[in-house]
Amino acid sequence: MAEFKTDIEIARAANKKPIQDIGAKLGIPSEHLLPYGHDKAKVSADFIKSLRDRPEGKLVLVTAINPTPAGEGKTTTTVGLGDGLNRIGKKAAICIREASLGPNFGMKGGAAGGGHAQVVPMEDMNLHFTGDFHAITSAHNLLSAMIDNHIYWGNELGIDERRVTWRRVMDMNDRALRDIVVSLGGVANGFPRQTGFDITVASEVMAILCLAKDLDDLQKRLGDIVVAYRRDKSPVYCRDIKADGAMTVLLKDAMQPNLVQTLENNPAFVHGGPFANIAHGCNSVIATTTALKLADYVVTEAGFGADLGAEKFFDIKCRKAGLKPAAAVIVATVRAMKMNGGVKKEDLGSENVEAVKKGCPNLGRHIANTKGFGVPVVVAINHFVSDTEAEIQAVKDYVAEQGAEAIVCRHWADGSAGIEDLARKVVEMAESDASNFSPLYPDDMPLFQKIETIAKRIYHADEVIADKSVRAQLRQWEEAGYGHLPVCMAKTQYSFSTDPNLRGAPTGHSVPVREVRLSAGAGFIVAICGEIMTMPGLPRKPSAEVIGLNDEGNVEGLF
Amino acid sequence: MAEFKTDIEIARAANKKPIQDIGAKLGIPSEHLLPYGHDKAKVSADFIKSLRDRPEGKLVLVTAINPTPAGEGKTTTTVGLGDGLNRIGKKAAICIREASLGPNFGMKGGAAGGGHAQVVPMEDMNLHFTGDFHAITSAHNLLSAMIDNHIYWGNELGIDERRVTWRRVMDMNDRALRDIVVSLGGVANGFPRQTGFDITVASEVMAILCLAKDLDDLQKRLGDIVVAYRRDKSPVYCRDIKADGAMTVLLKDAMQPNLVQTLENNPAFVHGGPFANIAHGCNSVIATTTALKLADYVVTEAGFGADLGAEKFFDIKCRKAGLKPAAAVIVATVRAMKMNGGVKKEDLGSENVEAVKKGCPNLGRHIANTKGFGVPVVVAINHFVSDTEAEIQAVKDYVAEQGAEAIVCRHWADGSAGIEDLARKVVEMAESDASNFSPLYPDDMPLFQKIETIAKRIYHADEVIADKSVRAQLRQWEEAGYGHLPVCMAKTQYSFSTDPNLRGAPTGHSVPVREVRLSAGAGFIVAICGEIMTMPGLPRKPSAEVIGLNDEGNVEGLF
Repeated sequence: MAEFKTDIEIARAANKKPIQDIGAKLGIPSEHLLPYGHDKAKVSADFIKSLRDRPEGKLVLVTAINPTPAGEGKTTTTVGLGDGLNRIGKKAAICIREASLGPNFGMKGGAAGGGHAQVVPMEDMNLHFTGDFHAITSAHNLLSAMIDNHIYWGNELGIDERRVTWRRVMDMNDRALRDIVVSLGGVANGFPRQTGFDITVASEVMAILCLAKDLDDLQKRLGDIVVAYRRDKSPVYCRDIKADGAMTVLLKDAMQPNLVQTLENNPAFVHGGPFANIAHGCNSVIATTTALKLADYVVTEAGFGADLGAEKFFDIKCRKAGLKPAAAVIVATVRAMKMNGGVKKEDLGSENVEAVKKGCPNLGRHIANTKGFGVPVVVAINHFVSDTEAEIQAVKDYVAEQGAEAIVCRHWADGSAGIEDLARKVVEMAESDASNFSPLYPDDMPLFQKIETIAKRIYHADEVIADKSVRAQLRQWEEAGYGHLPVCMAKTQYSFSTDPNLRGAPTGHSVPVREVRLSAGAGFIVAICGEIMTMPGLPRKPSAEVIGLNDEGNVEGLF
Repeated sequence: MAEFKTDIEIARAANKKPIQDIGAKLGIPSEHLLPYGHDKAKVSADFIKSLRDRPEGKLVLVTAINPTPAGEGKTTTTVGLGDGLNRIGKKAAICIREASLGPNFGMKGGAAGGGHAQVVPMEDMNLHFTGDFHAITSAHNLLSAMIDNHIYWGNELGIDERRVTWRRVMDMNDRALRDIVVSLGGVANGFPRQTGFDITVASEVMAILCLAKDLDDLQKRLGDIVVAYRRDKSPVYCRDIKADGAMTVLLKDAMQPNLVQTLENNPAFVHGGPFANIAHGCNSVIATTTALKLADYVVTEAGFGADLGAEKFFDIKCRKAGLKPAAAVIVATVRAMKMNGGVKKEDLGSENVEAVKKGCPNLGRHIANTKGFGVPVVVAINHFVSDTEAEIQAVKDYVAEQGAEAIVCRHWADGSAGIEDLARKVVEMAESDASNFSPLYPDDMPLFQKIETIAKRIYHADEVIADKSVRAQLRQWEEAGYGHLPVCMAKTQYSFSTDPNLRGAPTGHSVPVREVRLSAGAGFIVAICGEIMTMPGLPRKPSAEVIGLNDEGNVEGLF
């Protein structure tokens, strides 16, 4: 096993190659790689267009059990599997999301992966990276400014100022901006009204960028955004405000996927980062489809656990982009099984086979759910040093009973050498062409029934509870032509239910839908079940207080 | 003369070289050029450090008469002169400001220069460029969030919530954000208070980035920002909020100057862009000092006319950075002289020698003022096709009477070939070592007297008018240790006076100081004379409505 170092020490010691060398592995000519420094690049839109008629590689989804404070290592496994596939001779790339800048100044920021399975350059990826999120912020807020400007200059469209649904965004944890009154100060500043800011990752523009096939599709979707309603409740679109063209211009560079590298110098696309609750939580479609044209294997991940992340990956991203995943990996850890089995975090160090067994049904349900989409499943046991043989065996036995295989992976400690078995299994599944993917529900199912289908089939709930007003709103959208949209569930990631404390595989619960929202540009209906925060706050001691540059010019305190 | 094309057509037809080739002209090794695409790069902080002991080239300031709707072409002349110096065999670079993104979506955006004297890539420079302004926005708003967060978690520093002077910023024309109430919505969102947003270029962080010598100086200055006052009116600093380290991290890439090229493939540093009213209006000190270490001649410009721009360049930027300008070019046009002589814009096409003569005293006063700083002066007559020989001769004769020379420049039409005479004259002045630069007033002059000195010596006003409260505030800052700071005048750019309609060279006027502000981090006191808008609004028909991508993927409507 490798000597113990922190993630950031390992990342800084990485033997990075020039990004042109990484692009060359995928056959991207250097004139089509737009560099950002020496270790990041965007793949040019022209090159992506030229790939249209190429065959596509195999798409592998990495998902997980419900997250626990013990940590599962979903991104670490995604990165490790990409390296593992390269190690066994496959041309593989990974696709993951970009990090949001703001939250890093609250709690310590995230690495992209961990141990010897990371994507670099870590600092840049946790700061401005290639500026995509800033571009999204600008495009979103240009629309906001144009709406208030339209009202200011006479409101020709007849917008009901009380019904402007389009807010503003900032990539910052700033609770003071959640709920504000704008346009105070008199005639020159417009008509006062109540509104607020969300964090940039919650912007519908983010979801749109991540679902758009190309720049034309991007502009069409931006135009489709519903920004406000009139007194007669008819919608006002972004297109009516004439902001869609300028927003597309602001987003044209951001639409080009970013290429970076793993610690083992394998290609990694890191592009887009929508919320995994009020949005679908996957990296961009354009990164995934580009990677599929360039690599034989593309490993990607979905947000949160499989109940939220994989379901949305299949029912929103794959459905809309026509993707056919060839295999799915569900990441679990012995420690997380123990926590699901009732063990407290401080007791995770001691062997407890019974607790492991007791926690396994959480994993079991994710296996069954994922298989339900027609996709072959393998379980990756992300190995921790404290895991005992008996505990690992208990997970393996349980998974075998569910008709799947669990493979111990040591990529965190050993890089690709520790994950060869999983890589070989994934290749076996993918090349068997066993996948027979189909989404959970058809487009033409009524919206409320779609919510019920997800709640019953995925969450194993007994019923969905919703006020008349919620059902009426859904019917209204169906009449307005939005009935064919998929549903994006916003609920806690910690449980199959809407109660974050209900671990394991609960049954008999109900799913209360508090509110529904239309993301007409992104192309889904959001069903909000519980408290969803779209603008975080900073903690009492924000990590920003200790972030700084050290004498070598390196960033301290961010990780 | 070249065939007539628009600026954007000329810019798009440019035969750009890889940015590494441009860097090589200045001896920058490609590993120290951090590319952003193929035609933009940042110069690495390490390389800049390595230049410390090198000798410096000659610094040439390009300034202008008071701007008129006829247009003077200050940036065009800056670019042209840089090309002209290269043409006559000098190793020359130019240094100009970055454009602000937001205003481009209101009125049509600006080129960097014009005709055959431009800097490219124009689209990028009018959009996100290398992300510097986004980084400034993030750093500014992180501090804002940390202030409200500090109050939220108990307000240990005892900030008076009514006296938080630090606002938020956005690079957008959005009048609705000028005056807002934040933290509505109950306990979880903090304490409601009135505040607002300015446009990013008005941020003190922008001024700081443009005046900081290096990253250490940047962090010190950020720490010095006064963000609020207590009930006893004692100041609370950014350093007390512990935001300075994290802000420095957010700004570390933005501090590296950007390198691009002119149409003639000569090096151009484009870095920083503070307001020219409430700030000093010059590109960054670090770009200028870096260019001076790499080139024999560095041509730079200052904002607005010489009364505001050159005065601040000399009294703030040169004073603080220890720069010694070798020569100054004052740009004038026959058309602008005519407007100063009372001709309306629609009548500029007809010859009117008398009006030219009548308008020349505006130019004459700028010549005398600039000479007053000990810097040798030459006038560049930026040629327009409608100029007649007699009109040009009138300007030349007038300038000769003022003890200077006026040289006709045709760089707009002919590129460097049209500006050789000016280039040679500038070299002659610079190599004569005639410059004997000193600022207008000493550091230890009382603050109010500094304002009076500028008003009387530069604006030729009779007196400065200010309420008791303004004078008391200045005295208070003197007692608090800020008396040594220079003064940054914020007044209209259209006149020597504070009345924008008073063209020519007015006398007998008075300068009313409405308000004074402390920019303790940037290191100046702002004296506000008249209405200064720090958050613009969009017009009735914003240019954003017609901005879009055409079928070739080029940006339309931005220029």
